[in-house]
Amino acid sequence: MTEQIALPKALVADLGARARAAAAALAAVPSTAKQDALRHIAALLRAAAPEIEAANTLDMTRATAAGLSNALLDRLRLDAKRIAGMADGVAAVADLTDPVGGVIDTAERPNGLVLSRVRVPIGVIGIIYESRPNVTADAAALCIASGNAVILRGGSEAIESNRAIHAIFARGLAESGLPADAAQLVPVTDRAVVGAMLTAEGLIDMIVPRGGKSLVARVQAEARVPVLAHLDGINHIFVHAAADQAMAERIVVNAKMRRTGVCGAMETLLIDRAYPHIASLVAALRATGCEVRGGPGLRAIVPGLVPTTDADWDTEYLDAIASAGLVDGIDGALIHIAHHSSHHTDAIVTEDAAVAERFLRSVDSAIVLWNASTQFADGGEFGLGAEIGIATGRLHARGPVALEGLTTYKWIGRGTGQVRP
Amino acid sequence: MTEQIALPKALVADLGARARAAAAALAAVPSTAKQDALRHIAALLRAAAPEIEAANTLDMTRATAAGLSNALLDRLRLDAKRIAGMADGVAAVADLTDPVGGVIDTAERPNGLVLSRVRVPIGVIGIIYESRPNVTADAAALCIASGNAVILRGGSEAIESNRAIHAIFARGLAESGLPADAAQLVPVTDRAVVGAMLTAEGLIDMIVPRGGKSLVARVQAEARVPVLAHLDGINHIFVHAAADQAMAERIVVNAKMRRTGVCGAMETLLIDRAYPHIASLVAALRATGCEVRGGPGLRAIVPGLVPTTDADWDTEYLDAIASAGLVDGIDGALIHIAHHSSHHTDAIVTEDAAVAERFLRSVDSAIVLWNASTQFADGGEFGLGAEIGIATGRLHARGPVALEGLTTYKWIGRGTGQVRP
Repeated sequence: MTEQIALPKALVADLGARARAAAAALAAVPSTAKQDALRHIAALLRAAAPEIEAANTLDMTRATAAGLSNALLDRLRLDAKRIAGMADGVAAVADLTDPVGGVIDTAERPNGLVLSRVRVPIGVIGIIYESRPNVTADAAALCIASGNAVILRGGSEAIESNRAIHAIFARGLAESGLPADAAQLVPVTDRAVVGAMLTAEGLIDMIVPRGGKSLVARVQAEARVPVLAHLDGINHIFVHAAADQAMAERIVVNAKMRRTGVCGAMETLLIDRAYPHIASLVAALRATGCEVRGGPGLRAIVPGLVPTTDADWDTEYLDAIASAGLVDGIDGALIHIAHHSSHHTDAIVTEDAAVAERFLRSVDSAIVLWNASTQFADGGEFGLGAEIGIATGRLHARGPVALEGLTTYKWIGRGTGQVRP
Repeated sequence: MTEQIALPKALVADLGARARAAAAALAAVPSTAKQDALRHIAALLRAAAPEIEAANTLDMTRATAAGLSNALLDRLRLDAKRIAGMADGVAAVADLTDPVGGVIDTAERPNGLVLSRVRVPIGVIGIIYESRPNVTADAAALCIASGNAVILRGGSEAIESNRAIHAIFARGLAESGLPADAAQLVPVTDRAVVGAMLTAEGLIDMIVPRGGKSLVARVQAEARVPVLAHLDGINHIFVHAAADQAMAERIVVNAKMRRTGVCGAMETLLIDRAYPHIASLVAALRATGCEVRGGPGLRAIVPGLVPTTDADWDTEYLDAIASAGLVDGIDGALIHIAHHSSHHTDAIVTEDAAVAERFLRSVDSAIVLWNASTQFADGGEFGLGAEIGIATGRLHARGPVALEGLTTYKWIGRGTGQVRP
C-alpha cells in the first residue's frame, strides 16, 4: 500500500526535477533556437508518420477490443492526414512571436534606478489530457516555444501513440541542442500519477487540463497547483430590440449550429421582449434542426417548443439544443447572464451602440462580443496563432491562452550603486 | 458541532454575496467617483482620529492585560500621528492612475472583428492580516481604487480599532454614493472564519495575507482560493570580482542593516573568491553590529566568524545576522542562488556589464537587481505608489503588487455581423 502511494509521488518528483533543470536551460535559449528545434521536430513528425500510425494502430486495436465508443475511437485515431496536420501545427507555432524577453514596461526612478518588467517563461507546465494524441504535439510545441518545460500525461488509451509522438520531440530537442527533458511524457498509465501531479506544488507551476468536463472538474477540485481551464461554456446571445433581423438570425444560427460540440457554442438565446421578429428568429434556428426549449413567455409566442426546466438555463448541451427565453431589455439580459453565465463567452446583437457598450462593460465574462458569433472564441480566430486552452478563471490569463499566457515576468533593476535612504 | 462548522461558512457566504453585488456595481463606477470617495474617506479618518484612538485604547488595554509582547503592542498601537499617516495613505491611493478600463492591446482581425483586451477589476479580494490596524485602511483603499470589493479579516487583538476604521469606510462609501459593502469587515473574531475564507471558491477571487510567516504559511497551505503572497525573503547579494569596493560595501551594509525586519533585507552575502577586498567587505558589515556567519572558505580569510550551518543558507533572519560565503565566480553564485533562493529579490554588484546581464537573465526571482540595494523591493520605491503585497508566485503578478495587480482583463470584440465559416 505504501509503495502504491509512494511510487506516483516519486515519479512526479523525478519528472519535476528533470523538468526544472530543463526549464532553467530553456529559459536562456534564444527564440531562434527554440523555433528551429520546433521546425526540425515538425519535419521529423512528417518523416515518422508511418511509425506514429503503427503505434496508433496498437492503441486503436486495444480500444476497439475494449468497446470504446465511436466518438472516443474517432478522437484517438491518427491517419496520415491528421499526422501531417499535427506537424503543420508544430511548424506554425515555430512562426509565432516569442514573448520571452519582451519588455512590458520600463521606467527610471528619480534616484536613477531603471526598472523594467521583462517576460520570462512560467517554468514547468503540466498537461493532463484524454484520448486525443495530437494534444501531445500541440501542447509540447506551445510550451517549448514559450521556454517552458512540459510534463505530458495523456489518456491511457493513447499511450502508444503518445510515446511515438513524444519520442520525436525528445529526439528533435536533443538533435537541436536543447534539453530533451523540456518535453517529458509520463511513462506509465497509473491514474494515481494525475493526483500526484495535481499536488506537485513547487515541482509543477501550472496545470492545463485538456478534455471533457469530468476531467476538468476533477483537476479543479483536487489541484493544489494553479490550473488554467474552463469548466463550462454556457454562452448567451442576447438579441436586443434594435437588432438587425438578418444579422441576428445569421449570428444565432452560426453560434449554435456551426459546430455544436465546441466550448464557444451558444447554449442560451435571450430575446428582448421588444424585438419585432421573435418568431422568425426561433424559426430560423429550428429550421437548422436545433431543438429549441422555450421559457413560458416565448412559448406563448412560438407554439410547439419544448418547455425549459430550471436546469436548462445552467446546462451546456454541446448538442443541437438551445434554451431560449424572453427578457425585458438589456437589464433583463444582464440579470439573467449574471445568474447563469459560466464567464466564458457572451454576445449581444444590436444596432444600438450605447446598449452594446453597456453590455460589453457589464457582462463579466472572459469574452464579450457585439454583433459577432460566439464561435469565434478560439485562439486561432483571436490571432494568437494557437491556444493551449481557454481560461475562465479571473487571475493570470483569461479567454484564449497561447504563448503570452505561458509566460510571467520579473522585475529587472539596473542601478549605479543606489542604496535606500 | 454542526453549528460551529456551519456558522463561519454561512457568514462568509453572506459576506461573499454582498461583496459580489458591490463589486458588480463598483466595476462600472468611473475612476473619479472612486477617487473622490477615497479622498472623502481620508478626510473622515482625520476627523475621526479621537474615536479611532479611543477604540484602539480598548484593544491596547486588553492586549496589555493579555501580556502581548512589546513588539506586538507597537504594531497594534495607533496614535494621532499614525492615524494621520493612515489618512494620508488613503488620499495618496486616490491620486494613483486607475488601471480599470485601460486597453492592453487591440487588433482588427482580417474579417473586420476588432478585439481588445481591457482591464477590469478582479472582483472580490480577501485580506487576512494580523495586529496592524492600518492594514484595514491601506488594503481597503487599494481594493476600492481598483474597483474591487474587499473582505477584511484582521487580528482579533485589533478588532475595536478595525471596527472604527471600517465604520469610516462604510460611511464614506455610502456618503459618496458607492456601495458600503465594497469594504466589509468580518464582524467576529472566530478563527474558523479564516478557514471558511480560504476555501470560499467562487465567493472570494483572491486572498492576500498580510503578516508574519506563520500566517502566510497557513494561508498557502489551506487556501483553495488563489493567494498572492511571499513566504520568505531569503535575498542574496553577490559581490563579483569586478565590483567597485566602496559601492559593494555601501550596498551590502544598506541591504542588510537599513532595516533588518523587512522582507527585502539581504540575508545571504555571496562573495566571489576572486574579489580583492573580501576582508574589508566583511569588516564593513560587522562594523555596523551585524553578526556575520561564515562558510569555511571565508572563515579561512576572516577569522572570528561564527560558522554557518546548512540551515543558515535557508534562513530568513530578519535580524542583524547574515550568512556569508565564498563562491567561484558568477557560476558559483548562480548555483547557490538556484538552490537557496526564495525567488524574492537577489542582487549583483559588479562593474562588468556582461556578467551583470547574465545574472539578471539567469536568476529566477521576482526582482533581480544590478548595483542596487535589495531594500528597494517595495511598491513605493518601484513607483507603484503603494503595494498590497509582494508576490513570489509565478502566475498573475510578481514582485510588488499595487493597483494593476488587482485587475484582470476581458476580451471585448466589436463586430458587424461576423459569423465563423
